[in-house]
Parts: sequence; C-alpha cells; structure tokens
Amino acid sequence: MERLSVWAPDGLPEIIPGDHLGELIADLLAGLEEQDRPRDGDVVVVTSKIVSKAEGRVVAADDREQAITDETVRVVARRERPGLPPLRIVENKLGLVMAAAGVDASNTPEGTVLLLPVDPDASARTIRSALTQRLGLGRIGVVVTDTAGRPWRDALVDIAIGCAGITPTDDLRGSTDTHGRPLNVTVTAVVDEIAAASELVRGKSAGRAVAVVRGMDRHVTDADGPGARALVRGSADDLFREGSAEAYARGLADGAAGRGAGGR
Amino acid sequence: MERLSVWAPDGLPEIIPGDHLGELIADLLAGLEEQDRPRDGDVVVVTSKIVSKAEGRVVAADDREQAITDETVRVVARRERPGLPPLRIVENKLGLVMAAAGVDASNTPEGTVLLLPVDPDASARTIRSALTQRLGLGRIGVVVTDTAGRPWRDALVDIAIGCAGITPTDDLRGSTDTHGRPLNVTVTAVVDEIAAASELVRGKSAGRAVAVVRGMDRHVTDADGPGARALVRGSADDLFREGSAEAYARGLADGAAGRGAGGR
Repeated sequence: MERLSVWAPDGLPEIIPGDHLGELIADLLAGLEEQDRPRDGDVVVVTSKIVSKAEGRVVAADDREQAITDETVRVVARRERPGLPPLRIVENKLGLVMAAAGVDASNTPEGTVLLLPVDPDASARTIRSALTQRLGLGRIGVVVTDTAGRPWRDALVDIAIGCAGITPTDDLRGSTDTHGRPLNVTVTAVVDEIAAASELVRGKSAGRAVAVVRGMDRHVTDADGPGARALVRGSADDLFREGSAEAYARGLADGAAGRGAGGR
Repeated sequence: MERLSVWAPDGLPEIIPGDHLGELIADLLAGLEEQDRPRDGDVVVVTSKIVSKAEGRVVAADDREQAITDETVRVVARRERPGLPPLRIVENKLGLVMAAAGVDASNTPEGTVLLLPVDPDASARTIRSALTQRLGLGRIGVVVTDTAGRPWRDALVDIAIGCAGITPTDDLRGSTDTHGRPLNVTVTAVVDEIAAASELVRGKSAGRAVAVVRGMDRHVTDADGPGARALVRGSADDLFREGSAEAYARGLADGAAGRGAGGR
C-alpha cells in the first residue's frame, strides 16, 4: 500500500515585503500538533504569491500591462478580447510560458499586482535552509508553486516553479513495467504533481498558502538539487514555441515576400 | 486545516478483456482495512490502462503506427526522430491532444498495444455505479486517468480523461480572494489535480492501478455530472491548435501561392 497525506494549516499571517518567510513558515509549522509537524522526508509546499510578497515583488496595479511587458522575454501567442486588454501568453524571465507572464492581480492589496519571484529555486533553497534549522530537520523538500493554464485543456492547475531538496522528476528509464519491458519514456514531473496535490488543500480564496506533503520520502534528497528550472523545456525543442496564428502569420509574410522557409 | 489523503493498494489482479472492472475494483477495496475502505465523499481513481484492458481495447503491437493513425482525428504536430517512428502529437477521437494519440505500449502483454477507452466518462459512470452498489455507498466520485506530456515543460503528469460523480472543475468565479476582490478567472481543474495526486501513489512500474482519495467531499456530487470531456478545450478557442512548424509551413505555402490569410 502506498500513501500520501497532504495538509494545509490556517494561520499564516499576511506576508509583507521584507518578511523572513522561512521563519514565519517555521513558526506556523512548529505550532502544529505533533503528527502534523514536518518530519524528515516530508515536503513543504509554498505558493509563489507569498514568496513574491516577502521579496517585495509588488508593482502598482495601474502598471499591470506594463509589468507584463517588462516581464516578457518573448511573446508566444496573443488574442484580442473585447473590452479587456489582449490575452498575452509569453515566455517570462524564468523561461516559463504563461498567460500575463505570471503577473498576478489576486490575493494582493488593492492597487497592486505581484510579479513572480526573481529566482524561485533560490527562494526554495532559502526556505528549506530556514525550515531545516528552525525545525531541527535533516532532510525535507520545498516546492514553490504557481497556477497555470495549458493548451488544449480548460481550467488551471498548479505547477512547481521552484524546488529544493527534492528531485523534480521521477526518472523511471531503466526500470521495467509489470511485464518486464523497459520503461523508456516515462519521466514523471513529480514536483508538478506535488504542486497539484497541494492546491487541492490550499485552494485560492481561503488564504492557506503553505501545505505539508508526507509520503514522498523517496524523492526527497540531501542536496538542494537542480530545482524546478530543470522542467522548463528548451525553446528549440518545443513544438509549440509560437502560437498557431503567430506562426501562420509569419509564414504567410515570408511566403508572400518570396523568403525561403524560416521555420524556427 | 484542510486535509487530503490518497492511498493505492496492491492486489488488483491482471485485468483481461471482458472483466467486470467495477466488480474487481469493488472486491479489492472491500477487502481493505476499515479506514481504507471507500466512504461517501471519497473519490476512486482508476488508470485508463485497466479500463482499456477490460474493454478489450487491445491491438497487435506490429500495428502501433497504424493504430495511432486510426485513432488520429487531426495531426497537431509532428517531428522526425532518427531511428524511430516520427513523434506525432494528434487530436484523438476523445478530443484529447496527446503524443501517439494516447496509444500505449507499456504495461500490456508483449505483442500488444492499448488504445484509450472509447468513452472514459461512460466507463467512469459504470465503475461508479458498480462501486456504489457493491460497497453500499451513496455518493462517490470516480476519475479515470491517463499520462500526458505538455508544451513548454518536460516530463509527464497524469490528467483526468473521464470522471463521474465529481465536478471536473472548482469554479471560484463569484467568490472573492483574501482581499475581498472577485476571483474572475480562477477555474481549477480539480479532477486533473486529483489525477496528478493519485499518480504519486500509483506509480507506473509497480502495478497499482487504483487509488482512493479522501478529502474532496465538496466536489463529489449525487449526479454523474458532465464528465472530464468538459475540460477539453474547443479547437476554435485554442491558440495552439497547430504546432508552430506546421502553422508556419501552411502560412508559407499560402503566402507563396498568393492566397489570402487563412489562419485557423
């Protein structure tokens, strides 16, 4: 029997710029009943929102569109929306492809929007260090999450944009399936699945920004590891590097101008 | 405090065509210790593999490429791979966009490949009916999962391709965030997150094809509901309907031929 338990406590104070987030999370978790306090092998999941708040990644709401532009490395796709700013799906400075570059207008004080953390893997490492010290632990994982849409499916799921002390993937290549055949392509995005599982108890409107996950010991490591950046697919390998309309338009222009194939 | 528990028992027999899957799952779950037996408000998660096996969705392995072609409604993107058949990402008959149309060569007897179930939502309804009757329950959810890649991110996650007795999404539009502002765009793909959470305990090489999820009562419904098909985004709305190279090539041809814009 394999088991997974996930819990998200209430009680984290509102996070403001300059807060030592690792300490505040440690305070919250140290105050839980014994069975709910993190143990070696557990994973602590933290939404990027509170990391952004603690790191002061706050800009005025009037500048939301400008903030998105500033965070944009490359526009992937764009769609006009009547009465609203256009939908922009862009590659941001973290290499993540997201709507609005990940700029967030919810759960932040009126008149402000939040940018993503500058380096969520580094943030995860810092939180991990604080938690292991404060809670007297030897080995825990930390995952920093964000909410994202995806092509071909409606609605949103949480993914991992930062992690430390946990392998981002569960690489089964080299092992075999139940029939003894090699599993050649099965690399599971463990930290994305942990992010998704944690969202089910954190939610978005009730203010629970931290969750503990127990049962993932086999993925928790002594070292910080490569982080969630390892899950970002390189553009050159990506078959959906550009939105369909954008790629079509570029081809149309190249074809009409008599330019050769410039697919990229 | 919000809690989620997920567990995946060993002991399901090898599933063969013609098996009454709901009965076999009921046998497995009824035999668990009392606290692990499903209760009202729980969700039972089942991999599509065993649904496919029970439904006889098995074809000869020699025909894998032909099976993919047969299951393909529309090619979305394609990439040549030296020494291997080309990678084909296609829209299949379920409206799902997946590599190889979801045709599966792992965890199936040598010489065979598995097709996805014909109607995973219907399969979920059938399993739900069998479980509620056999286990004497009033209200449980059933989710049928498959493993999928995604653009822009490496590695795979599980998603829900069928469900019954559970709302596929947690629609927060109309509710407010911690600052009292309306949450206008936050629709969470609850069943995809449940699928992902269950994969963490099911795994792929150890033969655990069924999991129980407790803590999702608020999403479990009396009626079967719309199913996971509700999560499939319509092509017309999809900014990534075609792979970038495919859309570019089509534009290039149209431009060179002097055809007007035919973006679709």
